[in-house]
Amino acid sequence: MMRNIDERTITDAVLQSIASTPDARLKQVMTSLVTHLHDFVRDVRLTEAEWQAAIAFLTATGQKCSHTRQEFILLSDTLGVSMLTIALNHAKPAGATEATVFGPFHTADAPHVEPGADIARGAPGRPMFVHAVVQGPDGEPVANAEVEVWQADDEGLYDVQRPELGDTRRARAVLRTDARGAVRFRSIVPTAYPIPTDGPVGAMLAATGRHPWRPAHLHFMIRAAGWQSLTTHLFRDGDAYLDSDVVFGVRSSLIGDYVEHAPGIAPDGSVVETAFFTLEPVFVLASAR
Amino acid sequence: MMRNIDERTITDAVLQSIASTPDARLKQVMTSLVTHLHDFVRDVRLTEAEWQAAIAFLTATGQKCSHTRQEFILLSDTLGVSMLTIALNHAKPAGATEATVFGPFHTADAPHVEPGADIARGAPGRPMFVHAVVQGPDGEPVANAEVEVWQADDEGLYDVQRPELGDTRRARAVLRTDARGAVRFRSIVPTAYPIPTDGPVGAMLAATGRHPWRPAHLHFMIRAAGWQSLTTHLFRDGDAYLDSDVVFGVRSSLIGDYVEHAPGIAPDGSVVETAFFTLEPVFVLASAR
Repeated sequence: MMRNIDERTITDAVLQSIASTPDARLKQVMTSLVTHLHDFVRDVRLTEAEWQAAIAFLTATGQKCSHTRQEFILLSDTLGVSMLTIALNHAKPAGATEATVFGPFHTADAPHVEPGADIARGAPGRPMFVHAVVQGPDGEPVANAEVEVWQADDEGLYDVQRPELGDTRRARAVLRTDARGAVRFRSIVPTAYPIPTDGPVGAMLAATGRHPWRPAHLHFMIRAAGWQSLTTHLFRDGDAYLDSDVVFGVRSSLIGDYVEHAPGIAPDGSVVETAFFTLEPVFVLASAR
Repeated sequence: MMRNIDERTITDAVLQSIASTPDARLKQVMTSLVTHLHDFVRDVRLTEAEWQAAIAFLTATGQKCSHTRQEFILLSDTLGVSMLTIALNHAKPAGATEATVFGPFHTADAPHVEPGADIARGAPGRPMFVHAVVQGPDGEPVANAEVEVWQADDEGLYDVQRPELGDTRRARAVLRTDARGAVRFRSIVPTAYPIPTDGPVGAMLAATGRHPWRPAHLHFMIRAAGWQSLTTHLFRDGDAYLDSDVVFGVRSSLIGDYVEHAPGIAPDGSVVETAFFTLEPVFVLASAR
């Protein structure tokens, strides 16, 4: 009998309605979701005006999404749900490089480039030369690993945030490690930037007294047969937002050693007439077994 | 310091980020929301594939919404959140008519009609004659109350679900009570119907082994100066779905007395050549004080 619904009986009524969910895992997830969702509504004694505001917020968040904008990932990121999910799924053995948030700006069509390429392809910023090594826990090189890198330019924008670029991709690339586990490329040094604030997530940040900034970082995604995939960032030491990253992605172990150099000969032998940076990170993968 | 985020410290980091929310109530709601949301993710140890499925589900739900479709209200209804919110906000004094879900099919442009009008306006269904009385707790009539009624036709569709009708409204109307607190109108008898299943909510119902049906009902919304507004339904006794309403809206006190009559003289004096129904509900409002 489900004819006398009140604020106490409603939760059991909903749980009873999903009692015959065929997939056991889905039943577990939905049971927990309904229980926590109802507890939240009861705890705050949600008003009807607040319920209406929540419906409007969620609707606007969905309608802000497009093929170059994922506002629900941004919401998950800014509420710490993305980083929590990563922490739950990527506990690494001691010594392995830690994971962090994926973010909403990855694309499936980054260009594959040769060693030493300038992946910035005209994106504005100060030159940076990267020599990265991918290895196992005992220092063994991981050859033929796919290393994908992506970043914002020094105006704080990813290529997909610049309509004038159309489908042109820049400041992102896919490389392969050589026999010593190394990749090298030229790009630009990352700078801090605000996440997009022209949607519902921006309104949420403003209403809760939060700034929209992320500390400067390079995104890396590394995949190699026999090893756990790694999605991570390298942050810059001294960044003003390391302790208040709007998506909660910072870990001490992920702060990289970006070294600034006076104008002169770069690691690739070229002459650079402005100051430039070098970065020589080592990524330690965990075995897939 | 927020540089060592893990599955335990992330919740405090997010709560710290909203600590200076200017509006005290918003801070309370967001604090509870983040706490329950993180507890849910930790409880089920959400996988990254499940997180991606959740992002895709929420995005599709938002993108299914239009000016005639509100998929997030449907989601809230089918997860019991709407009925819970109503239960929290509409505790009625003894004797007052109880409230139930608003639903996604109300429109702001229902036609205002004269007493005795046929509000079905061609919507298919068996004739029904309604004489409703609105009164206070001591039986005093509530004159000049606005009584809005809306319903599906006997093919299970509201007017807004029929693109061929354009902006034509039928089987919905606004009336005003007379000096005795009464309204009367002709319409069609409601029948059980499934909620729309061609969107994400339909997929959720199928995956959790639920049917999409609502028991037959008439929607009423009653507003009068000096009285609490009432949004409710009148269900039909004997309906197969009274104990499994997909939106959990049934209360015993809201099961109306729909009386079937043989063809003959209707209450409005007209001759009806098919069987018809009468319904004579009494709505008891609670004082606004």
